[in-house]
Amino acid sequence: MNRLITFEGVDGCGKSTQLKLAAQWLRGRGEQVVTAFEPGDTSLGKEIRTLLLAGEFVPVAEAELLMFLADRAQHVREKIQPALDSGAWVLCDRYTDSTLAYQLAARKLAEGAANLKDMLRFAECGVSPQLTLWFDVSVTVAMQRMKKRAEAGEKATRLDDEAASFHQRVAEAFGHQFEFNSGRITRIDAEKDINGVFAQVEQALEAHFSLS
Amino acid sequence: MNRLITFEGVDGCGKSTQLKLAAQWLRGRGEQVVTAFEPGDTSLGKEIRTLLLAGEFVPVAEAELLMFLADRAQHVREKIQPALDSGAWVLCDRYTDSTLAYQLAARKLAEGAANLKDMLRFAECGVSPQLTLWFDVSVTVAMQRMKKRAEAGEKATRLDDEAASFHQRVAEAFGHQFEFNSGRITRIDAEKDINGVFAQVEQALEAHFSLS
Repeated sequence: MNRLITFEGVDGCGKSTQLKLAAQWLRGRGEQVVTAFEPGDTSLGKEIRTLLLAGEFVPVAEAELLMFLADRAQHVREKIQPALDSGAWVLCDRYTDSTLAYQLAARKLAEGAANLKDMLRFAECGVSPQLTLWFDVSVTVAMQRMKKRAEAGEKATRLDDEAASFHQRVAEAFGHQFEFNSGRITRIDAEKDINGVFAQVEQALEAHFSLS
Repeated sequence: MNRLITFEGVDGCGKSTQLKLAAQWLRGRGEQVVTAFEPGDTSLGKEIRTLLLAGEFVPVAEAELLMFLADRAQHVREKIQPALDSGAWVLCDRYTDSTLAYQLAARKLAEGAANLKDMLRFAECGVSPQLTLWFDVSVTVAMQRMKKRAEAGEKATRLDDEAASFHQRVAEAFGHQFEFNSGRITRIDAEKDINGVFAQVEQALEAHFSLS
């Protein structure tokens, strides 16, 4: 049993903040923790991220999917797998569920020539999360939070700038994945305040990993 | 029936020279011809090519495969498909057979989580070559030619620098593909001189497309 935990949800759901809190909390219990994120968490991945998100290029849907998957394969082999092998917990901000929501569902990429889910598995190089925390917020709340961040000077990515209908499809896709993978995915009510959200994160970690 | 013709073989097999001659020959017959190459024939692809081949990064085998496929998907949708739609012939220097030889066979990438051939088809976005010319030379001859090019100042790529055993596996893989796809792939004896090789190319084009 690996200890890879993925943090998933739409932009503005609070997952990155909660990931930091969870890492702190686990470290406070004496655990070894590596934090990670996608895309762009390796030196190669950083370049791929720029091509994907900076807005200079607009990859076609198939190329976008394949580039996100390339970033993941490099991430798993170069960072995640070695960290897990060393006995660390790995907390990863976005993983395969994001690809499924953003690159497949929201882009309406049709299955056809390939079983797309097989491709997602291929890019994981054998490393699937033990637990996924899905930070569920309405698209309205998420977009308000993103607007605040933009006002505070945070730069939007090419995907942030997609239409509201795109983000709606992303949110629905996360909901569907939860429905069909409720053993792996724990739903977190992410419309509460930071402490209210973290209480649920703590509870999910304790329950899933039998911590006391 | 599209008129995509792919030119395949190990580096040093002469395919790029023959592609230029074939384009010239077809244009001389009044045909509209677009020449293309992989990887790196779109503005996004050019960036991907640098990440793949310049040697600053060493992608893991899975990431390497996925990046070549991303380059292809972008190439097909942005350049090849529109050119074919306009009625042009497209002559492409490397395509899916190269990926199969270099990224799957030579890297010994195992099937497992995914049917890798489905992934190759996915990246083609529905565009398979009507004819593939395989320029067959021994690895020894190819490596002698590459050495001459290097002496003439041509810069080697990260893949050129792989061991001889890697190039041997690439060459064998092209042979296997020919064996199993002899309807699509025409073998060209590429150890002859330029004119001797082009005579075969001309004959293959005439036969396959019923030109007279």
